[in-house]
Order: sequence, then structure tokens, then C-alpha cells
Amino acid sequence: MHQSPTMSKTSGGNYFEDFVLGQKLRHATPRSLGEGERAIYTALTGTRFALQSSADFARSLGLPDAPLDDILVFHIVFGRTVPDISLNAVANLGYAACVFGVPVYPGDSLTAESEVIGLKETSSGKTGVVYVRSVGRNQRGETVLDYIRWVLVSKRDPAAPAPDTHVPELPKAVSPESLSVPAGLSLESYDWALAGGDLAWEDYVPGERIDHVDGTTLEDAEHQLATRLYQNTAKVHFNRQVAEAGAFGRRIVYGGHVISIARAASFNGLPNAFRVAAINAGGHVAPTFAGDTLYAWSQVLESHALPGRDDVGALRLRTIATKDRPCEAFPERGEDGRYDSAVVLDLDSTVLLPRRR
Amino acid sequence: MHQSPTMSKTSGGNYFEDFVLGQKLRHATPRSLGEGERAIYTALTGTRFALQSSADFARSLGLPDAPLDDILVFHIVFGRTVPDISLNAVANLGYAACVFGVPVYPGDSLTAESEVIGLKETSSGKTGVVYVRSVGRNQRGETVLDYIRWVLVSKRDPAAPAPDTHVPELPKAVSPESLSVPAGLSLESYDWALAGGDLAWEDYVPGERIDHVDGTTLEDAEHQLATRLYQNTAKVHFNRQVAEAGAFGRRIVYGGHVISIARAASFNGLPNAFRVAAINAGGHVAPTFAGDTLYAWSQVLESHALPGRDDVGALRLRTIATKDRPCEAFPERGEDGRYDSAVVLDLDSTVLLPRRR
Amino acid sequence: MHQSPTMSKTSGGNYFEDFVLGQKLRHATPRSLGEGERAIYTALTGTRFALQSSADFARSLGLPDAPLDDILVFHIVFGRTVPDISLNAVANLGYAACVFGVPVYPGDSLTAESEVIGLKETSSGKTGVVYVRSVGRNQRGETVLDYIRWVLVSKRDPAAPAPDTHVPELPKAVSPESLSVPAGLSLESYDWALAGGDLAWEDYVPGERIDHVDGTTLEDAEHQLATRLYQNTAKVHFNRQVAEAGAFGRRIVYGGHVISIARAASFNGLPNAFRVAAINAGGHVAPTFAGDTLYAWSQVLESHALPGRDDVGALRLRTIATKDRPCEAFPERGEDGRYDSAVVLDLDSTVLLPRRR
Repeated sequence: MHQSPTMSKTSGGNYFEDFVLGQKLRHATPRSLGEGERAIYTALTGTRFALQSSADFARSLGLPDAPLDDILVFHIVFGRTVPDISLNAVANLGYAACVFGVPVYPGDSLTAESEVIGLKETSSGKTGVVYVRSVGRNQRGETVLDYIRWVLVSKRDPAAPAPDTHVPELPKAVSPESLSVPAGLSLESYDWALAGGDLAWEDYVPGERIDHVDGTTLEDAEHQLATRLYQNTAKVHFNRQVAEAGAFGRRIVYGGHVISIARAASFNGLPNAFRVAAINAGGHVAPTFAGDTLYAWSQVLESHALPGRDDVGALRLRTIATKDRPCEAFPERGEDGRYDSAVVLDLDSTVLLPRRR
Repeated sequence: MHQSPTMSKTSGGNYFEDFVLGQKLRHATPRSLGEGERAIYTALTGTRFALQSSADFARSLGLPDAPLDDILVFHIVFGRTVPDISLNAVANLGYAACVFGVPVYPGDSLTAESEVIGLKETSSGKTGVVYVRSVGRNQRGETVLDYIRWVLVSKRDPAAPAPDTHVPELPKAVSPESLSVPAGLSLESYDWALAGGDLAWEDYVPGERIDHVDGTTLEDAEHQLATRLYQNTAKVHFNRQVAEAGAFGRRIVYGGHVISIARAASFNGLPNAFRVAAINAGGHVAPTFAGDTLYAWSQVLESHALPGRDDVGALRLRTIATKDRPCEAFPERGEDGRYDSAVVLDLDSTVLLPRRR
Repeated sequence: MHQSPTMSKTSGGNYFEDFVLGQKLRHATPRSLGEGERAIYTALTGTRFALQSSADFARSLGLPDAPLDDILVFHIVFGRTVPDISLNAVANLGYAACVFGVPVYPGDSLTAESEVIGLKETSSGKTGVVYVRSVGRNQRGETVLDYIRWVLVSKRDPAAPAPDTHVPELPKAVSPESLSVPAGLSLESYDWALAGGDLAWEDYVPGERIDHVDGTTLEDAEHQLATRLYQNTAKVHFNRQVAEAGAFGRRIVYGGHVISIARAASFNGLPNAFRVAAINAGGHVAPTFAGDTLYAWSQVLESHALPGRDDVGALRLRTIATKDRPCEAFPERGEDGRYDSAVVLDLDSTVLLPRRR
């Protein structure tokens, strides 16, 4: 790009050599969330979980209002970080240690900060992996989200010296003790039929696989609306010219939109998984484009009681999303360790469900 | 579909033989409606009725806030019923006795229940007609919508025995006595110019026909956003792969979106029809697809004073929507009883208008 | 079009000979704006200005809530005027003297009025230029927007006599004294990092040019949603059949959507331009269509201190938007006075920024 003097007022994002271990970044654009975001998120994903859909239902469980969808909160916090962290990212490599904190209610205002917790130049010398821990907080300073992600970022100048390599230790999964149950939540009067069925925490067994059945075809207008709603500025999602010059020749759907669609689909099979409490690990296996039809299935990995609660339990799930391939055969990695060509997402999360009483 | 043991957690919807006369269904996913739904509905339909557009206008008429659009309320209640009633529907055959109750205001939370009031297996033995009466209620238990619809539903097992045939008697139209005027509504200070013109109830004469003129071209992203906003899960609207394997080879627009577009268009000619009070009958004549341009016209069928009110009157309307055909020639059924090939909707509704004072 | 007796109930909009100098029009459809409009506007444009994005940020500056985006307010007021002013417009020729008044907060209800301040039949005798001054007000009667626009409108009957020509004198720019700073605004605790950077009013120098870098590809569903959100009824934006019969053969993007996209892009380079205070002049150079990728750049024309304020300054900007052409070379008019073929918008506006303290 032509570097005119005036370019200095325009941010082109950070490159690999701009990051320093221990560096802290306060991200721009504080953001309020409200009924508008809730409604658009429903229109974009079709999500049907009762707790996030009805203020009256939420109040019947002791909450002050219907909390906003956890994955929506993830996207909003993630969106703040993009201009500073991943504007020059080649790939979003993974997530870990993602814990959802206090619920976000309509009217809350969020901000986000990140710390660089790891750096590793790649062997090519043209890119490097940046590990960041990002924290989203509400207007009272309470943590709503805390997560690590690592991205492959271009170097501005391939000749820039490599930093000392530091790769942080990443937990394989968020421990059950670290999961947050919304304050005030009481499941005594939980209305199973209204929520979508009588499947309780006890009904799910590790190893069990669930096909979420329903497929969703994506349109460019839809994923662009979603990604702009999150004020995520990554060019490959919005700019046809940039995308056509790239490796895939067309706009790439924000990977987080795929997570949202898979989470919404999981209502069919997990209707009472009322909260995503953690994302343990996972990432985007392949890009998704407008016209693709997304499907998803989940496997129960672990089942955990929660300390001090006999009304809520946790399930650790592996959710795989595919494009243009229904999931009744549960496509995943083959014996050679390679993913089935239809797989686009492999996500390890922990959800909360009511226990049978 | 492969029936794995785990499929039992996933709902594939009810088939004809699953329904029993008198069966009651409490539908899942309670739903709050607010300013977000109002705004998206405006963006999706362009509706311009003053009462639903301005809280200040609504307050000038004695209401606490601008009520949400009646047809939006219809879609929300309808959406609740889809997973239980019509996930395996071949066709949505008709509506009757649809009465709008208390207005829905931002912040209200709706739930829906249905009762099976009729069953009739078709001669092929592969499908059957299910008649349901569905009722939507707010968080105070007040009825916001009460309607009958009948759908042609597939049998899971063609060999399943036919139930006793029971076809309910359906009223030809909702009686004027059954129409609900919003509590507290006073039209004394109705601002005709602000609402869109001086056309009062008295100005419309039975037999009169009105071309609503304006055409609207539909996009896949639009009808998908609308249908997901209503949490309507019918596959043919969202899943390109399922749709391409079906009779029409492409995604079908939710018929309710066509009703919304026709209602919005009717502002041009009926600007003061401030409320849809009833849907008497009607149905979807032909499917609509992305790329189609919708037009509409209405005929005044009847004009009714309302008992005890000298400020409000009712008009029974027949509204026909077409695709790719402007309506200045009022296309409808020909002398042979067959619809003009452009017609997609034939709806019999009752709207309320201010009387001239 | 067939003129049946019933056509009289349908508005086809005013033609040139319907306008009279001094005529006042109260426009239909009063409109409340709220969190829903804010969220959709963000989803449609990706705008990232802190003041409009976060209620908490707005409160830290002494305001009661986050005001709605100024350009959104412009579109809402503009939308009211379309059915009366420009339904039969051939072209939207220009804007002038556009001053933004009191901020619009969620819950406010707007109405709009216009006065015909100029008329000039064109030499062809088939069209004429109509100059209107339009004013938007909130529910307390306070002015939120006051602007002049002129449009080329068709005559219904080319034989209709020409009115006396009256062309109003238009100010070249809104004077700094006329600019409105939101009541109660205090920038003492302005959080520069949170807002997007430390660029203050003092950092911008007349003559300086800023490439806003980021490109946005438009979809039909997106501009249709935007334009309907504003209840703007111009047929060329929505009706594929009408558009295909027109000069361009396809639906034209509402020019205001281009202004919104350019304003959102300007965050990159002008992150602290927290308010659009005026649109001095400008217009739409060429039409935009779905599939086009929009870019923008700005030139600082003037810098003004504001009377009585040492915390806020104003910049007069010229913003040019292009389609399918990145702006690092600052495309504009050539020496022959003709615009570069990529230019679609040339807008002269005044924005407010915090001064360094």
C-alpha cells in the first residue's frame, strides 16, 4: 500500500513484530448490548434456548432479565480485539481457557483488554504466532469473558528480528471448579416443557453422540450483518475485492458465525443446555462461504457435577460442524488423523444443564 | 435417516399418526418481544403504520406504548407451534377464526399452546390433515392470539391405521362482536395527517378494490432473517440442500413473510387501518422464492360498525398478493375457478380504522 | 397505469406541478427510535464510534444515554419526506444547510415537516427542480435536523404550465456558530484509548488527506433492509422489475446508505470525530449497486474552534466514496472537472472532535 504521510492517522493493524511479550492492549469501542442485539442475533442464528429468549422465563429462575446469548458475548469481546490483534492475521489458530463470567444483561456496556502471553516466529520468517489473553468486562468491571486465543500474524518486514520464543502452557480444559453459574439462578421452578423437553443433565452419557439434524444455508448478507454487528473489522469477511485476491477467491464467513449456527442447531438434542460456561479448546478446520449449508453434531466428552450445587450439572461437549454434509454419520477425523473434508469446526465446550430433581 | 440410539434426543417433529384428537401441546421457547423485534420487522417489511411506529403517537391515543405489529405477533405464535405441528408438513392448507387479543407491548413475554381439533387421513394413506387451535398468551396469561390452522402432514409409517375422521366446523369469518379493540384506546385526538391521510372507515365501500401499487423483491437473506426471527424451524426455508431435493428445487419463502409484505404494502390505500383484528380465512396459493417481486391489492368485502364504539369501525378485506405481476388489473380467480398464475396469497382479514368524527 | 376510481385512495406521490412555493407538508408516519435501530444500524454499517456505541461511555461524558448515530437520524427524517417529495424524483440533486440539532436518544419519537422553498422547471418541460427545507423534531418539538435538499421531479403532464422560477440562495457551508454541541456534554474525562486513539482536533490540518482504507461490498438484502428501516419508499431500491426497466437495469442502492458506509469507514483515520454536526453540501455522483465494494477518503477543508468551548473543535471535511477502487491515490475530479469514474459520493460535512487538554 502507498505510504503517504497522512497514512499515519489510519490504522492498518499490528504486525507480528509490533507485539511484545507482556504487552497490554486496551481495545477501542466500548459497547452496550440490548434488546436490539438480542433480536438480531435470533434473526441471524434462529437460536431457541428459553433462558435467552424470554425475560419472563429468566425471572422465573431468579434472574433479573434474560441474559444475552453467551456466544454473542464472545463475538462482541472478540470483535473489540480484532483491530489490534488480528487485522493482519493469516489464520485464527485456536481458542483455550475460555470462561464465561457474569451474565450480560440488556443495558450492560462492555469493554475489552488483552495481554500478549506468547510469541513464536514461524520457520518461514514471514509470520509468527501471537498468543493473547483477552478479558471482557461490564460497566461495573466484572469479568464477562476471559479467554486465550492464538493467531498466525504476518510480519510487516520479513527481515525484522525474531522475538524470543515463548509458548504459554494451555489447559486442556477449563476445570469444573472454574465454571460460573449466574448469580441468583434457581432451577426449582424450571419449566422443562417450555424449555423444550425433559432431557436433564443425568440423561447424557460420556461417549454419546447427538446429530443436531437441522441444516442452515449461509448468505453473504447474513454473515456480513453478523460480523458487523460485532464490529469485527477483518477485511476478508466484507471486501469482495480483497477476498477475490486471496487464497479462496471469495469472502470468508467469520468463523464465530459458524460457532453461533452450531450452537443454535444444538438446541435439537440439547434443549436444556441453558448456558455455555466455557470453551475449552478448538478451532476452525476449514473456511466457510456463502452458499454452504451448515450441519452439526456433538459428542458428550465428560459429565461433571458442580461443587455446591445439586440443581445444575456440566457437560463437556465436542461439537463438529460440517458444510454440505448432514451429520447422521458423525463425520470427524479419520484414522489417518485427517478431518473429513466436510468438517469446518471442531469445538470443545462446556455447557450447563438442570439436574433432575 | 439413520436411526442411531442417540437420535432419540433429537426431535424430528410429529408425524400424522402422532396426533390424537383433543391432544394438547405446550410449545417450547417462551419469547419476549421488544424494540429489537420492532426495528427488524420494520427493516424486513418497510411497514409504515403510525400506531406501531411511534410510541408518542400511541400515547396520544391513550395506549402505554406502541404495540408491536399484529402480523409480527402472529408469526411469533406460529413459530412456537412449528416444531410440534408442522415440521413434517407437506403444505400449510389454511387459517380460520384467527382473532387478535390484547396488544403486545415491548417487554411482553409470549407462550403458545395448541389443541388438536380435527384429523383426517387423506385418500393416499400417506398423509393426513391436522387441524389445530393455537393460542398465544402474554406473561399475565392474557390471550394475544387465538387461531385455527390446518396442515397436510406426512405419515411416518404409511401402514399406520387411520384415525377416526373429525373435521371441525370452521366459521366463515370472525364476527364483529369478537373483535378486540385495544384497552384504553381513544381516537379523539387521532392525527390523520401524521398517520398518512384522511381516509376514514366511512370512506370504504364493500366491493371497492384498491391496488397497493408498490412492489418488493425478496432476497434469500431477508426471508431467512425473518423466519429465524420468529424461531420458525421449517427446513424448506433455510436448507438449500433439502430444498433442492424438493418439489421446487429451491428454498421456499415462509408464507407468513408474504402476508407481512402484503400488509405493509396495504398502507398505500389503507393508511389508517391501524390494527389487524382478525384473519378470517385464507391461505397460500403458490410458493414464493427469492428474486420474486411481490405486489398486492385488496377488496373491501364488508364494513361493520363495532358494538358500543362510535370512533372505530371494521373492514373485512380480501387481500391478494402476486409475484412478478403488478396488481392494477386486480388478478384473482378466473371464471374457471383457477387462480391467475401470478397469485401467491388470498387472505381474508378484518382491520380496524378510525371513524370520521 | 390503469386509473380506476379506487386508485384515488392510493398515493402515487407528488409530481412537479403539484408543488407550490411556500407549501408546507406534514409528513406521515411518526417514528420512535430505540435500541433496535441502533443495533441494526451497527449491523448494516459496522460503525465503531464510541459515543454512539456505549451508554456507559456516553454517561462518562455527561449525556443521559448513547445518542443514536447522526446519519441514522438523517435517514429517518429523510425517509419521512420521500412519499411526499421524491416518489417521482428522477434524481436527488443535492443537500445544503443541513444542521444536526439536539441528539436523538433511544425512546425519542420523531416527526418531519417540509416547506417548498424553490421551484424551477427544466428546459425540457418534462421535469422540474423542487427545493425543500425539511425539519425533523422530537416528541418535545425540539429540532433534531434541519436541511435543504433539491430533487429533479417528473411532471405528470408535460403540458402543465411552468411555475415562476424561484431558486433559493444556499449557504456554501453551515457556519461554525450554527453547529450544535449536545447539551451536557463534557469532554474532561474523555477516554482517548477507549474511543480509538489519541488523534485530537489539533492534529488535523486543512489540506490533509486521509485514506479510510477499508472496503465494504454491498448486497441487495443489506441496502434493502437499511432503506426499509428508514421507511424510505423509493421504488428503485426495492423493486427489481421497476429497476430493470430503468436506466441502470438493476436496483439502485439508496444514496444515503453510501453516506453511512463512508461515515463508518471514516472511523479509520477520524476515530474521535464523535459527531456529525452538519452536512454543508454534496451529493451523489454516480449510482451504486449490489456487488460494488465501497471505499472512502476525506480531506480536511477547514478547522474551526467553537465559540465558548475550549474542549471541542470542528473540522470541515470533504469525503469522497468510490466503488471498486481503493482510495490510496485519493481519486476525485480530474483537471477537466470530471469525476474519476470510480467516484460515487462527494460530501462536504462538519464533524466535532475533542480538543487536546
